[in-house]
Parts: sequence; C-alpha cells; structure tokens
Amino acid sequence: MEPSKVLSLAKRRGFFWPSFEIYGGVAGLYDYGPLGTLLKRNIISVWRKTFVQGEGFAEIEGSNISPEEVFMASGHLSEFTDYLTACENCGEVFRADHLIEFKIQDGIAPDGKYPILSGLLEKLASGRLEAMDLEKEGIKCPVCGGKLSTPYPFNLMFKTTIGAGKRGRTGYLKPETAQGMFTTFNLLYRYHREKLPFGVAQVGKGFRNEISPRQGFIRMREFNMAEIEIFFDPENKTWPGFDEIAGEKLMLVPNTGDDEEIIEMTVGDAVKNGVIANEALAYFVYLTQKFLLDIGIKREKLRFRQHLQDEMAHYASDCWDAELLISYGWTEVVGVADRGTYDLDAHIKASGADLRAFRKFPEPREAEVVRIKPIAAKLGPLFKKDAGRIKKALEEMEVPEGWKDGDSLKVDIDGNSLKVPADCFEVSQERVKLSGEKFVPHVIEPSFGIDRITYALLEQNLKEEEGYTRLTVPPTVAPIKVGVFPLMARDGLDERSREIHRVLVASGINSYHDAGGSIGKRYARMDEIGTPYCITVDYESLEGKGVTIRERDSAEQVRVPEERIAEVLKGLVEGTITLESLMEKN
Amino acid sequence: MEPSKVLSLAKRRGFFWPSFEIYGGVAGLYDYGPLGTLLKRNIISVWRKTFVQGEGFAEIEGSNISPEEVFMASGHLSEFTDYLTACENCGEVFRADHLIEFKIQDGIAPDGKYPILSGLLEKLASGRLEAMDLEKEGIKCPVCGGKLSTPYPFNLMFKTTIGAGKRGRTGYLKPETAQGMFTTFNLLYRYHREKLPFGVAQVGKGFRNEISPRQGFIRMREFNMAEIEIFFDPENKTWPGFDEIAGEKLMLVPNTGDDEEIIEMTVGDAVKNGVIANEALAYFVYLTQKFLLDIGIKREKLRFRQHLQDEMAHYASDCWDAELLISYGWTEVVGVADRGTYDLDAHIKASGADLRAFRKFPEPREAEVVRIKPIAAKLGPLFKKDAGRIKKALEEMEVPEGWKDGDSLKVDIDGNSLKVPADCFEVSQERVKLSGEKFVPHVIEPSFGIDRITYALLEQNLKEEEGYTRLTVPPTVAPIKVGVFPLMARDGLDERSREIHRVLVASGINSYHDAGGSIGKRYARMDEIGTPYCITVDYESLEGKGVTIRERDSAEQVRVPEERIAEVLKGLVEGTITLESLMEKN
Repeated sequence: MEPSKVLSLAKRRGFFWPSFEIYGGVAGLYDYGPLGTLLKRNIISVWRKTFVQGEGFAEIEGSNISPEEVFMASGHLSEFTDYLTACENCGEVFRADHLIEFKIQDGIAPDGKYPILSGLLEKLASGRLEAMDLEKEGIKCPVCGGKLSTPYPFNLMFKTTIGAGKRGRTGYLKPETAQGMFTTFNLLYRYHREKLPFGVAQVGKGFRNEISPRQGFIRMREFNMAEIEIFFDPENKTWPGFDEIAGEKLMLVPNTGDDEEIIEMTVGDAVKNGVIANEALAYFVYLTQKFLLDIGIKREKLRFRQHLQDEMAHYASDCWDAELLISYGWTEVVGVADRGTYDLDAHIKASGADLRAFRKFPEPREAEVVRIKPIAAKLGPLFKKDAGRIKKALEEMEVPEGWKDGDSLKVDIDGNSLKVPADCFEVSQERVKLSGEKFVPHVIEPSFGIDRITYALLEQNLKEEEGYTRLTVPPTVAPIKVGVFPLMARDGLDERSREIHRVLVASGINSYHDAGGSIGKRYARMDEIGTPYCITVDYESLEGKGVTIRERDSAEQVRVPEERIAEVLKGLVEGTITLESLMEKN
Repeated sequence: MEPSKVLSLAKRRGFFWPSFEIYGGVAGLYDYGPLGTLLKRNIISVWRKTFVQGEGFAEIEGSNISPEEVFMASGHLSEFTDYLTACENCGEVFRADHLIEFKIQDGIAPDGKYPILSGLLEKLASGRLEAMDLEKEGIKCPVCGGKLSTPYPFNLMFKTTIGAGKRGRTGYLKPETAQGMFTTFNLLYRYHREKLPFGVAQVGKGFRNEISPRQGFIRMREFNMAEIEIFFDPENKTWPGFDEIAGEKLMLVPNTGDDEEIIEMTVGDAVKNGVIANEALAYFVYLTQKFLLDIGIKREKLRFRQHLQDEMAHYASDCWDAELLISYGWTEVVGVADRGTYDLDAHIKASGADLRAFRKFPEPREAEVVRIKPIAAKLGPLFKKDAGRIKKALEEMEVPEGWKDGDSLKVDIDGNSLKVPADCFEVSQERVKLSGEKFVPHVIEPSFGIDRITYALLEQNLKEEEGYTRLTVPPTVAPIKVGVFPLMARDGLDERSREIHRVLVASGINSYHDAGGSIGKRYARMDEIGTPYCITVDYESLEGKGVTIRERDSAEQVRVPEERIAEVLKGLVEGTITLESLMEKN
C-alpha cells in the first residue's frame, strides 16, 4: 500500500497521527494513537522476548536530558551535524545536501550518469560541504531565487539549559540510548558480578532536530529506539547459541559484491568465509532477522546490507544494516555493528573513570612492574591534611611515559593538579605475580528504529482488494486479538456477547466488543486493523451450542464451546493451536 | 528504612542510581538500573491491568517536545513558575521560597508561632513574591552574604528550538502527559465512535527544570508519569462499576476537618455525604487506593487528602491527593481531580478547533434558531473567487452578540478577517427540530507519579533485622520471581539447575541462576532484592525427587516435582496457589 493511504488509514483508525494538528502540527512529530500504542508495545514485547529474556540480558532506562560532557566525549557534538545554507535575501534555511541532491537529479543525463555535476556528487558523498560555493554550482534559493550562503554545520541535537542563572548547564536531548550504557559500564559490570560477556538493553526515545523532515513516519524528530550493547572480551567473540543456528540462512548484501544482489548464505558460512567479522556479530544479525520475520516482516522484502568500507563509521570494524523494502525504497531499520573499544575508550579519556573489565590469566603470570612507593615522612610535612590522599593517588597511578629518575610527579586531587617532588617517592621495578589484567571490552551493538519497523510492518501487511482492506499482521503483534459480536443486538445476544467479552478481558486477552451495524461491517472494521479472530454469538449460542470463531485471513469459521473460548484464543494467538486442528475435531 | 540506606542499596543492587556520575552527575536525574527497570515495569503493568484493561480505556503515546502554543493555552507558560532571586554580588541563583522558608524556620518563637515574620508567611502562601524586598526581610545571599535581587518568576519548562534559522520554533519538553489527550480530543472522540464516557491513558515522561532539586528520587527533573483523562457528559458523572465497590473503605482527610485526622469512610458514604463531589471521582479515588495496596503500599501509610479550597487549582472543582508516609513525611504520589471543562475550553479558545461532544436529546426538540442566509448574487460580484468560501463561512457561523439589523459581519478566511456588508446576507429566526446539542465534556484526571510510588514501595518494604535485609514486595511486582541454585556447583547439580532455569525463562518467568557462594549467601542476595521464591536443586533432585521451593517472607520450604515447577511458580506469583496448600499435599 502506498504511503499516503497508509498514513490516512493510520490516522483514521488510530494507529498514529501528526502531533499537535489543532495548532498546525510540527513536522517530524507523531503521536501513537490507541491501536498504534498497542501494536508498538506488542512489537517491543516480541523484541524483549527475543533479545532480553531470550539471551538473559539486562535492561536499563536512562535520562533523556544529558549534560554536554557526554556528547563531547561521544563525538556527537562535533559529528552529529547536517550542513545548512541560508538565503541571503529571504532568510529561509535549507539542508545543503538536499539542494545538491535535487540539482544532481536535474542534471541526470539520459544514460543515467551525472555529466556535469560529478564534482558535486563527490562532495555530497564526502559529507564535507563547508567550502562549497553554491552559486557557482548554479544552486539558488528555491523560494526566492536569492544567493545562498556557504554551507555551515548545524548540530542536530536539541539543546536546552538545565537549571538557571550561574548554575545553569547546557544539556541535550539524547540522540540515541547507547551512551547511557557506556557511561554506566562500571555499574553494569558490577551488576553482572564482573563477568563478560553481558548485554544491556534500553528501549526509549531518540531526538534529532531535523531541519526539514520529509517522508512522514520514516524520518522523525522524536523517535522510538531499542538498543543493546553487548560487552565482550575481545579475545573471545564467540556466542553460546551460535552452533544451534549456524545452519540458518541469511539474506546478505556484502560490501564486496554488487550493491543490489542479495546472497543467501548460512550464518555458519558467513563467518567461515569471512563475510561477517565474527560469530557474535553473525549471531545478532541472525537474531535480528528472526525477530523481524516473527513480527510479520516479509522475507522477500528484507535484506542485510554491509556498510561499504568508506561508509563505515570510523568506530565500527564491521556493520550490517537490516533494510526493509517499502515505498520509499530499501530503508534501514536496524544497524548491527561491531564498535570495538571506541565508545568506552572515549568516555575513559574524557571522564577519567575506569570503565575496564578484568581478565584472569589461566595461570598467574610473573611480570616486571614499575611501582611508585610514596615516602610518608616526606609527604606529611609538605602536604599536611592532603598527604593521605596524595599517598593513595601515588600508589594507584602508573609512571607516566617519558618520566626520568629525579623528575617530579603530578597527581590529581579534586580536579587540582599537584606537583609532588622527587624526594617524596621511590620508583622501583619489581617482579610480581599477576592474577590477571584489566582491559577495555569490545562492544557489539544491535540498534533498532522501532517506528520505522512499525511503519514497514503496516505497509507490507496492508492488503487492499476491491476496496476491502485487510491488515495481515501475525496474531502476536495484532493490537486487538479478538472482536466479539452479537449476531443481532437483541434477544439477549448482546448481553451474552458482552459477558464473553468481559471474561476474555479478565483473562488478559485484548478483546473488542462491537454491536453496531451489520456483521459484515463489523468484520470489515476488525480486518482493517488486523484483528486475527472474531467471535459471533448467535441463537445457537443461547442453546449452549458454543460460538463461532472466524479467522481473519482464511475467513474460515469453527464452533467452539463457550467454556473453552479463552483457552482456545490464547492457543491460537500463541500459535500452539491451529484453526484447522479445531475444525478436524468438530 | 531511611533514605540514605535506600539510595545506597538501590545503587549497589541496580534499582536506580544518579545519572552521569562519571561526569559529576546532574542533580535531579536518575537512571533505572536492571532491577529498577523490571520493578517499575511491573508496577506499570499492574496499573495498566487496573485502569486501562480493567476499565476498557485506550492508551496513547505523544511527543515529549511540544510547541509553545500548547502551553500558552494550558496556562503552563504563565503559571508553571518558581520565584528566583539572584545575588547581585556573586551571581548565584536561589529559589526565593526556599530562602524564605529557611528564614521562617530561624524565626520560630518558642511557642511555635512566627513572631516577626508572619508577613513573610502570607507572601509565601500566596506564591506571589515579585514585589518582595528580601534585604528588608533580613534575607541575604547564603553563599557570600550579598544583596539579593527582587524575586522574579522563572518558567520551569525545559526550552528548546525545533528546526533552525527562520523556520526555528520555540518548543518545550512537556511537564505532564495530559495535554496530549486534550489536544487530540477530536481524534479520540472519533476513535471511541462518538460515545461518552471514555478514558484515555498515557504513560510517559514529564520534565521540570527544578533550580535546586532536593530529596533524591522524590523531586526529579525528569520523571515517569501515568495519567488518565476520562471524558464525561457533565449531566452524568456516575460510573458503571460504582455499586460493586460502594461498600469499600477509603482513608480520607477531607478539607473540612483536622488536617492530620484520617477518617475511614465507605465510598458510598463519601458520595452520599458530599465529601467526594461525585460517583465517578469517588470510584477513581477507590481504584487508586486498590492499585497502591495491590503493589504493596502499606494501608496504614496511605491516605487521600482533599485539596483545601484556597489550595485547589483554579481549574479543579474537587481534588484528592494520594499521600504515602515515607521518611520525607506524607508525600503526594497521585492526584485525582475533577477538572471540569477547563482544559478543553482553553484549547478550543486558543486553537479554534471543535473539541466538543454531541448529546442526543431523548426526543427531538423544537428550538428558535437565528440563521444567517448568504445572498449568493451579492457575494459573487463582490468577493469573486472567495465568494464560495465566504458563503460557507456565513452559513456555519453564529450571529455575534450585540449584532443589530443593518450591521456588517466579519468572517475569517485563511486567518484574514473580511468584512461582509449587510446586503450580502439575511438574518432570520426559524423554528427547527434539533436532534441534540454539542457540549464541552468534563474531565476527571487521575495522575500518577511513578518514581515516587516506586521509591515509597521500596522504602516501606525494605526490612532490616540484625543486618539482614529483606524486600517484602508482592510477587507480582518483584523484579525477579525466582532464584535457581544448585546446592553445590558440582556432581551435575549445576547443569541440572541451569536446565531448570532455562525452562523457567522459556515459560516467561523471570528467573536468576546463581551458583556462587554458600546457599545462605545466595538466599540473602535474593531476599535483599525481593525475589519471592528460591529453588534449590540438591542430590535428591538427581534421584527424581523434585526440588525445594523456599518462600522469602516465611522462609518455609516445600518439595515440588520437577515437571510441575513452572506451573507452581506461576500460580504462586499470580496468587492462585499458596505455599501452605502445597505443604498440605506433601
């Protein structure tokens, strides 16, 4: 179904709609309506079963507002930017890359090449547009035709101030949830009783101050993410469940082949042939595929594309995007990246915190270590009440590179750097037995764009035939599991059907009671929102002959005794019972 | 347990911790750790069962970032403020009311009265501090003793900019979720097929830019809320389930009595005696109490305090706060308010949108209506291409108050006000039959502070006896439902216990496997985080004699056959099986 129809149905039936419409709306902001909230929650619930409960991962929930230091360290402050250009005449602001893209499309020659503008294309690909003279390239203000400024970088994080006055501090809305797992690695490592590997998930919002959001639900200013950081000892990137799934097939587009050719390959072969960097990464690519298929994404509209070498972010050693085919083309919805030590390194450097893990040696190892031994009798008179803390700092520090006998040492006390003269300590080499060593863990990160997945699921599953619309999502994610109807709204059928509806709700099944309009209309209303089963209470039901259950996609019906309805429905939704098996019994 | 111990345990065991500690932290921001995320989710799950599924309400999820117009209409832009004062010497900023409070406490006379400062107290109570000369009251900068500025209002919403340049627009982080239900009333009314009453819930973040957040987890800058707006026909504030719960007792502190005296009264009597304004409000006060008791809040530490007449917000006709007794004193965690038409009126006025419902008359009514009949032959020549739209606008508008025969009329076209001369229309009175009328619904709002509830639940349920800590939360909300231990980590006990752990996880039970340290230590670890059951696999288990299940609070144990473990545990957690009944069977 095309996007405009999906968006219109989504609004009419309450899946999602543009936020703040009564005030003219704000581009890139959407609300989930009643059905969308249920659908999204069901998707996240399958995700949680697959990744969090299934793999024994932990889940945390951090703040949306974050102080500047976090993004200074992560690189977002310098790198998370778009290039803007402002019209010197009318003052309108545009994304420079968008204007260049349009210009390139204008300039496409019949043979599909870009005859005049190949220089533009390279600049666009490099993402470095700051030195560009747009006028010289023939690009003018699309609104008034005025001269455009040189493109300038614009940070895409929403900025705010935490507190007020002198104590006010710059803060940003997090552009991803991931940093929350890196900055608390020390606490999470302790929670996991100092054992690797472990995974920590987070479901939450991401924020991105797009200049001119396009593509409806696909590119939003506020979006739902689900991310996992799995921390590894880099010496061991295997995964316990790998062997069980090594024979499963993946749909891959490796960066060595044709950009459009999907290669089917088993998980095992992908690792053996070096297509995917390691077992653990391949395992999570597979699990991502399983999750997407489980919620109802179409196998033929799903592929994993490996980042090109020059497209790969500087921190990733290998990265695979799950892409779904929708009207907007192949659209990235998940990224599965091996990020190495990049993030933890950055926060260790910026904060000084110890975000390392400990690896025990199989046997204790003898090693030469250089030790600093403070001389208390010298420190005391010199540093008085600080002497104790300086002693501790000296004992814990390592001898800096380039230090020579007779040099003083600098220690950090409450952010102040203090110089400790050479006669206050001794430096000696010792042979010691080490039981292990500290190291910075590697990180594998599967990162999911939940709104895009939700949209793609709707688009891929909305079937329109002769004006009749059916949403064919699997029962597990369907917002409403069953519609309950009286055949007629009289003769006690209405009361009986309401009673059944109440029983279903009480047993935890999301049921919708509908007594309005013809049965056909009520089926149609339920089919349109993906309700997999409908129960009708008819005159035979009043005689104790049970009710009919109708399946959405086959339109097959079967009678079920009233006392078994809840149990049968649960079984149907969870897939432990099929309608066929019920029909055979009858 | 006192707050410092709760906070320390919360951090050590992974319930919650201050955000961004490696960068020095940000006051008022906390992360939920692995156990806190589970605990909070379980609390919200009970809340959802009680309010959303139980009452058949819808749930939506709106944006955090909202445009200025929303809060101009809601009153937050003018009213959601604290008074600040800045030191003219050192530049530090303080909350004026805090400084005044401290001063008042200093000035308390032995008889408990405020001898000198009674004027201060009144100003503080009125909340209007802008004209106050702090120096004259003897209040100086607590940091440097300098002169303080006149208090000035400071808006507590976090401000940001949506977009950039000329298209940039002021936005705020929502201070509550409620506005999202009011601004989409038209869509929600349609979703509910234009029938009242209906309720819409939202679980999400609220943001409040506190100047100097105190009280740890109780006063946060970013917090979790769960809110419901129930829309009513004001002519009918009854509620379907009311009669069934009319005999249940409430713990009330009405605003007519002693401030500290809790009166036990049935829900029915509270309405009959006019203590609570109407049935629906009383019903949701009761449901709030039921929810809080269900998750493990102590009955003797729970009360509902009615807002005083002068404390009642200008929009509320009646309001009851659920207050919980914790170390900080009686602390508000829920507000249940009858807000009348205040919010919808405000957004109708500000946006011009029709946020009304329709009420059918029992019988069609004859009524005199004043109609405006456009004269097309006059409009055409005068307004040319706009004539059609002006005709439509005239037909839909009402005759303004004070309009006299011969006056022109103003119509609004695309935001431009056009004058339509008197000869372009006729005004006539007609008798018509009306099938019903439009009206602005009333709103009852239960609004929950989830973090405060989570904190109070921990504080009220953490029991420390001789250095042994037990968290006595009900199994339904406990983060981990069962600990699975091998008696020894050898002889195949470890493998067997891991197998049982895996089976439990696969059947949806949150299980934790622990083979480290003595059994006593492992019990202690589980008791401290509220795990209600522990399973031990011993040598008898290897002989097919089942495993032991130990209950947290009684420390009683019972043997259960291995094939029944999942079923028994589910029953214990859901409360359909008791340990006693299992013991009797053995």
